[in-house]
Amino acid sequence: MDIAIALYDRFTMLDAVGPYQVLEALPETHVRWLGPEPGPVQDESHAGAIVADAAWEDMPRPDIVVLPGGYGSRAMMRDDRALAWLSEAHEHSRYTTSVCTGSLWLAAAGILEGLEATSHWLELETLAEYGARPTPRRVVEQGKVITAAGVSSGIDMALRLTELLYGAEAAQAVQLAIEYDPQPPFDAGSPDKAPEPIVELVRTVMSAQQDELSA
Amino acid sequence: MDIAIALYDRFTMLDAVGPYQVLEALPETHVRWLGPEPGPVQDESHAGAIVADAAWEDMPRPDIVVLPGGYGSRAMMRDDRALAWLSEAHEHSRYTTSVCTGSLWLAAAGILEGLEATSHWLELETLAEYGARPTPRRVVEQGKVITAAGVSSGIDMALRLTELLYGAEAAQAVQLAIEYDPQPPFDAGSPDKAPEPIVELVRTVMSAQQDELSA
Repeated sequence: MDIAIALYDRFTMLDAVGPYQVLEALPETHVRWLGPEPGPVQDESHAGAIVADAAWEDMPRPDIVVLPGGYGSRAMMRDDRALAWLSEAHEHSRYTTSVCTGSLWLAAAGILEGLEATSHWLELETLAEYGARPTPRRVVEQGKVITAAGVSSGIDMALRLTELLYGAEAAQAVQLAIEYDPQPPFDAGSPDKAPEPIVELVRTVMSAQQDELSA
Repeated sequence: MDIAIALYDRFTMLDAVGPYQVLEALPETHVRWLGPEPGPVQDESHAGAIVADAAWEDMPRPDIVVLPGGYGSRAMMRDDRALAWLSEAHEHSRYTTSVCTGSLWLAAAGILEGLEATSHWLELETLAEYGARPTPRRVVEQGKVITAAGVSSGIDMALRLTELLYGAEAAQAVQLAIEYDPQPPFDAGSPDKAPEPIVELVRTVMSAQQDELSA
């Protein structure tokens, strides 16, 4: 089973690595890191880089597609090459998945039209502009399209995907192997739970960063 | 504030990227990826690589040290160069932290002697061989030494570290930014919670992998 994680300039590292760490543990899977070109792909803040093994087109028909989010996903939405690769890959995939604003890339390719989908909480409404039905759940399944919420949700998504592909015992085994028994020190991980001033702070800072990088 | 994430051949990617994604969001921090040499460092399964900006010794005195785990941590335990760098870095650090079997590297450097510490659940007892007191909690704080349990626990550890460094509001803001509102599909993330056959399966598979890589 070929699993393609599709990187691009300014992707968010945890969006990609959460699913990776779950999926690479599975038997008979082959994870490939794809990028615009082979070589290091800089992350969102250009403070880290993961190496792409190959260019997107080098794997035109992966079984599983994983799209991480990141401020750079805005550029993917208007990149003809990125949209063409994704359309072809999705046509033949067994599952097409996204984490965080990776769903914007899916949306721009027309893949979410009429479907429920999620994204980072700050970008949920953007999905509606592309005909999707924004759905504020952590993991949203619509046939073979699975979208996950912000950044860290890719771990939950990949465990669910593991269950779909290999069954509940495999998913539990991977969960135990990566000791995913989360104990966050606060209960502030969603805009419904965080104190209102924290929500406003994050909204202001992240919107400013997105605007700066889109300029 | 200089934060050094110290990579090595066969580190576990999520161990490193969980804390990275939390800490790189903080103001006035500078995260550096260190490796045996600058350039790509292959992860545990050699199916992925993160780029090291510099060699370990290029940053002899970071403010924060983050040691990821991985099967390769066994090699760090008997690598004089790795032990010398860590000893010097720890002497001057504000916090010295580990995720998963990164704590074995700390233990071999003598840093955990007499201290409570944690690691991946499969390696907890190894800590005792180096004079530490194995403590099966997700995050264990002993003065400036903070150890975390397996793989995914680095996210929890880094949020706690953020609280220590910048206060509760900063930690909540980062938690919300990365939408860390975990909803694992199963409750199997620790050996106390997972079904016994799953625990035995993971023990068998992971022990065999460690033996194979140590051979």
